[in-house]
Amino acid sequence: MSRQRWWGWGTDGHDGPLPEAGEALLAEELGLGTERTVLPALEELELPPSTLTDGARAKLEEIVGAGWVRDDHEARVLHSAGRSYPDLLALRSGELSHAPDAIVSPADHAEVLAVLGACADLDLAVIPFGGGTSVVGGVAPLAGEHGGAICLDLARLTGLLELDRRSGLARFGAGTFGPDAESELAAHGLTLGHHPQSFEFSTVGGWVATRSAGQGSTGYGRIDELVQGVRMAAPGGEVTTGSGPASAAGPDLRELLVGSEGTLGVLTEATLRVRPAPGATRYEALALPGFAAAVEALRGLAQAGAAATVTRLSDEEETRVNLAMSGSPRAAAALRAYLRARGLSQPCLLILGWEGATDAALRARREAGHRVLRDHAAISLGEKPGEAWAHSRFHGPYLRDELMSRRMLVDTLETAATWTDLLATYRAVGAALRSSLASRGTPALVGCHVSHLYPTGASLYFTFLARQEEGAELEQWQATKRAAGDALAAAGATITHHHAVGSDHAPWLPGEIGELGVDLLRAAKRTLDPTGIMNPGKLIDAAPLPS
Amino acid sequence: MSRQRWWGWGTDGHDGPLPEAGEALLAEELGLGTERTVLPALEELELPPSTLTDGARAKLEEIVGAGWVRDDHEARVLHSAGRSYPDLLALRSGELSHAPDAIVSPADHAEVLAVLGACADLDLAVIPFGGGTSVVGGVAPLAGEHGGAICLDLARLTGLLELDRRSGLARFGAGTFGPDAESELAAHGLTLGHHPQSFEFSTVGGWVATRSAGQGSTGYGRIDELVQGVRMAAPGGEVTTGSGPASAAGPDLRELLVGSEGTLGVLTEATLRVRPAPGATRYEALALPGFAAAVEALRGLAQAGAAATVTRLSDEEETRVNLAMSGSPRAAAALRAYLRARGLSQPCLLILGWEGATDAALRARREAGHRVLRDHAAISLGEKPGEAWAHSRFHGPYLRDELMSRRMLVDTLETAATWTDLLATYRAVGAALRSSLASRGTPALVGCHVSHLYPTGASLYFTFLARQEEGAELEQWQATKRAAGDALAAAGATITHHHAVGSDHAPWLPGEIGELGVDLLRAAKRTLDPTGIMNPGKLIDAAPLPS
Ligand SMILES: Cc1cc2nc3c(=O)[nH]c(=O)nc-3n(C[C@H](O)[C@H](O)[C@H](O)COP(=O)(O)OP(=O)(O)OC[C@H]3O[C@@H](n4cnc5c(N)ncnc54)[C@H](O)[C@@H]3O)c2cc1C
Ligand SMILES: Cc1cc2nc3c(=O)[nH]c(=O)nc-3n(C[C@H](O)[C@H](O)[C@H](O)COP(=O)(O)OP(=O)(O)OC[C@H]3O[C@@H](n4cnc5c(N)ncnc54)[C@H](O)[C@@H]3O)c2cc1C
Repeated sequence: MSRQRWWGWGTDGHDGPLPEAGEALLAEELGLGTERTVLPALEELELPPSTLTDGARAKLEEIVGAGWVRDDHEARVLHSAGRSYPDLLALRSGELSHAPDAIVSPADHAEVLAVLGACADLDLAVIPFGGGTSVVGGVAPLAGEHGGAICLDLARLTGLLELDRRSGLARFGAGTFGPDAESELAAHGLTLGHHPQSFEFSTVGGWVATRSAGQGSTGYGRIDELVQGVRMAAPGGEVTTGSGPASAAGPDLRELLVGSEGTLGVLTEATLRVRPAPGATRYEALALPGFAAAVEALRGLAQAGAAATVTRLSDEEETRVNLAMSGSPRAAAALRAYLRARGLSQPCLLILGWEGATDAALRARREAGHRVLRDHAAISLGEKPGEAWAHSRFHGPYLRDELMSRRMLVDTLETAATWTDLLATYRAVGAALRSSLASRGTPALVGCHVSHLYPTGASLYFTFLARQEEGAELEQWQATKRAAGDALAAAGATITHHHAVGSDHAPWLPGEIGELGVDLLRAAKRTLDPTGIMNPGKLIDAAPLPS
Repeated sequence: MSRQRWWGWGTDGHDGPLPEAGEALLAEELGLGTERTVLPALEELELPPSTLTDGARAKLEEIVGAGWVRDDHEARVLHSAGRSYPDLLALRSGELSHAPDAIVSPADHAEVLAVLGACADLDLAVIPFGGGTSVVGGVAPLAGEHGGAICLDLARLTGLLELDRRSGLARFGAGTFGPDAESELAAHGLTLGHHPQSFEFSTVGGWVATRSAGQGSTGYGRIDELVQGVRMAAPGGEVTTGSGPASAAGPDLRELLVGSEGTLGVLTEATLRVRPAPGATRYEALALPGFAAAVEALRGLAQAGAAATVTRLSDEEETRVNLAMSGSPRAAAALRAYLRARGLSQPCLLILGWEGATDAALRARREAGHRVLRDHAAISLGEKPGEAWAHSRFHGPYLRDELMSRRMLVDTLETAATWTDLLATYRAVGAALRSSLASRGTPALVGCHVSHLYPTGASLYFTFLARQEEGAELEQWQATKRAAGDALAAAGATITHHHAVGSDHAPWLPGEIGELGVDLLRAAKRTLDPTGIMNPGKLIDAAPLPS
């Protein structure tokens, strides 16, 4: 069940106006106006009528019980879209051309299997739905060639099913939301340590299905490094992988199921590596003199094994915009003045979040990190700005809603590249975003940060802002997305480091994995989902981006 | 090209008689006799005639050039088997019912692709051959349903093709042998750090194709953790994966190719993570009071991130036999006396190999490890026995040859399990090996060590020794293998942690990954190898173990 407001991020009570300095900056540089859009009322939204037949409903209710097959207006709206920019555009404009015909909520693995069997018989497409926070069109209820589309809400497959403390393994129901998973673990003094920015409203199954990365993935590892085993229910049957820590028994099928985005089957459980909750935590910020030099510092950290659990470097532009958008203009001004005095007129902000079993362990890690940073002219800014970041780490998406209400295009995209290719990729994508938007008469602010470090490379995460092109909001976004995706492909970088493919990135997948690679995915799909009912139009065989 | 003696391990000049104490132990406990078997001469071996037609030869020579298609007696013998116990039994007895019809040696990726196309047209099975050190029947030249079998020797696809120092990535030709790869890297001050016991005679491609683990994998990671990308040539075309450090662009196809054991296509290149060669190295040994307690110490090391690069714990029986087999009986006796004086009559030997960029870094790692070990009553034995282990780390296989010449059954098998399941698995497999061999009138010595640690579990590596059952050598081994494999399956442990599946472990694969899992592998095979010419009878659809 989506826990979110139907029209945007999260829950009520977290919204607020743009900070004054930020508003001024956007007005001056991008032409932000004063107009606010008005949201339609939930009841007014027009949905296509549900095509669910009485017979189909009866068959599904027989499996999951009455009350767990819904096709009321609210449920259909809440499951009609994810949280991508085009999703939000559609919701806000009340244009819901797709909505699921029904929302089915099975209670457990066996019910999922039975529902999939029934849907195959009924020729209904099935869209697995965790938290619905997909930013790539992953939960769009497309029926494809099928007679209808049901949303399979996994919110009842929840909770800590098994804990093996000794081995540090926890088996969770796929529909477990982030905060629930962490609080179950916290009761045992443990943590998973997986905190995507969408943490509060996304699920274990969604993370695994999309190869998600958390803000602390540099320390804890991406979800694909944390998952030891999965259980999948598919129309073709069931697959379970990974009872032990490692195996050489042929290809690793787990890696075929992880990241399959609901196109092969439903992940019903995941066994995840958990660790003792850290005894000590310390956030801090530093400033570095320019992105290229700062990236070298990150490389030093990563290759020395000395990176912090959270290691997050903003480029000059993101640093500048974030300072303007920060809630405390006085602190931001003081910071700017201090940095200018130290010769840094265009600083790059680095947030480090250190963790350790004990204070002493934390200190040892931090000292190793600072030894590397010292060689890269990093200036320490102390704990305050680090703590401020940690405090508001899940707040950003509310700002996006506010910006959209102010008729701004605001979106993000991300990739990863080797250390050798990182800066060229950074420049190419930034240039593509800027020139695409400028050419439409809507100049852009493009900021970028690095937030996931590997010994061989790192991620890049771009945020771009521009005035909406009124009447052509979607086309403006599509052109920009295409320019950025093409730039990524030309740079040889992946179309996505952690947001997954969905439908939005699907046009670039064949280029990235090759036609034979796509054929391998199709072959897996034919095996697990012979009639092609699982999440049509995502990952493979998606519709091309309109030109 | 196999670099090994046709009948056994490695090259001449490393053999020697059994150490006296070891010989006495085996005579007393297992009934080792004094007889030596006599090897047939290479020329005397009887091979089935090659079925390669002149037309096929011409077609293949057109691709690879004259001289690179061989079907002479010596070449066929050298490529007729791997180095498993049944392989060695067959070679030593001169019973070569299978030999490849020809050995084809392509020069590069393009030639591999062309050879595969030609073989598909000619209906010839293709067996990729790296070093031929497979211990699971992986290079057995089975033709399956096809008109003949050619061995595709990869020894010409060799060398360091590209080095990206900055990103720590090295692209190697698949046929590069271990020592050649390391010496190319050493010239740049780098190392891969992958040292399976077969290091000297196995190849990069073989490692990746089998998910191999090295003696230092606890520190460096298994080969599947070191490989960022692969290039595969298959009858159905070509697949390349992994240009960056991480991606969420759908399922990870690399993990479908890694471990595919030649059944999907030929890995022609692998891009591997490399690191600066360590500036400091230190081996040492400790003794622990009993295997169960010692395993707890290892768990402590692994979960604290404090394990040594090489961390290798022998159980009581392996410790006892290794001391007897060691070349220096005086040192062994002194050690035993010392340990008895310290109250350890049944010690477990722990070898630790520490590495660090500098002496200080090594010291810090070692201190962290020893802090954990101190809580587990470990007794330090100093550097000498550690160095002795490191010095002879690649020597063991020569001893196996000598034991076989003395009519001993000698084999190893390995698995992995979670920390929670490790001891039960250990006991079950040990019991199965002992009772299977005892029931045939050939009592066994069964030793075990743990050599690969993970936060969630560890590997187990068994060595078993018994008198050969004369006239029923193969049946004796088959019964033992079946008992051990069934015990692993019953314990829920993987049939192999790093030796791969080949044909010997294939009977247990469906139980481990499920029928639908096997169907996924078949579907991948149909896509990449539509006519099924790649390495028939391995991994999937292998012949059942005879009963
Ligand atoms: C504001 C915001 C911030 C974000 N920050 C991050 C971030 O920091 N890191 C990150 O990685 N991502 C981030 N995301 C993207 C998104 O949150 C992730 O992809 C997340 O993993 C999705 O989880 P979910 O439970 O919401 O899945 P959903 O959105 O419900 O589904 C995502 C995809 O997985 C499929 N799916 C879901 N559950 C299952 C299942 N059990 N079995 C099979 N298929 C399933 C769906 O069909 C869909 O294709 C962010 C998104 C937003 C809107
Ligand atoms: C004494 C001894 C000690 C050993 N110690 C270890 C150890 O410590 N750790 C460990 O992991 N293993 C060990 N092994 C097993 C073996 O050495 C490994 O499996 C090794 O990875 C095989 O490499 P190779 O080059 O010899 O491959 P081969 O034996 O030639 O081939 C192995 C399998 O891979 C396939 N293959 C080979 N190259 C390619 C390619 N380029 N593309 C596609 N398929 C290919 C073959 O068809 C075959 O199925 C040991 C073996 C012996 C005999």
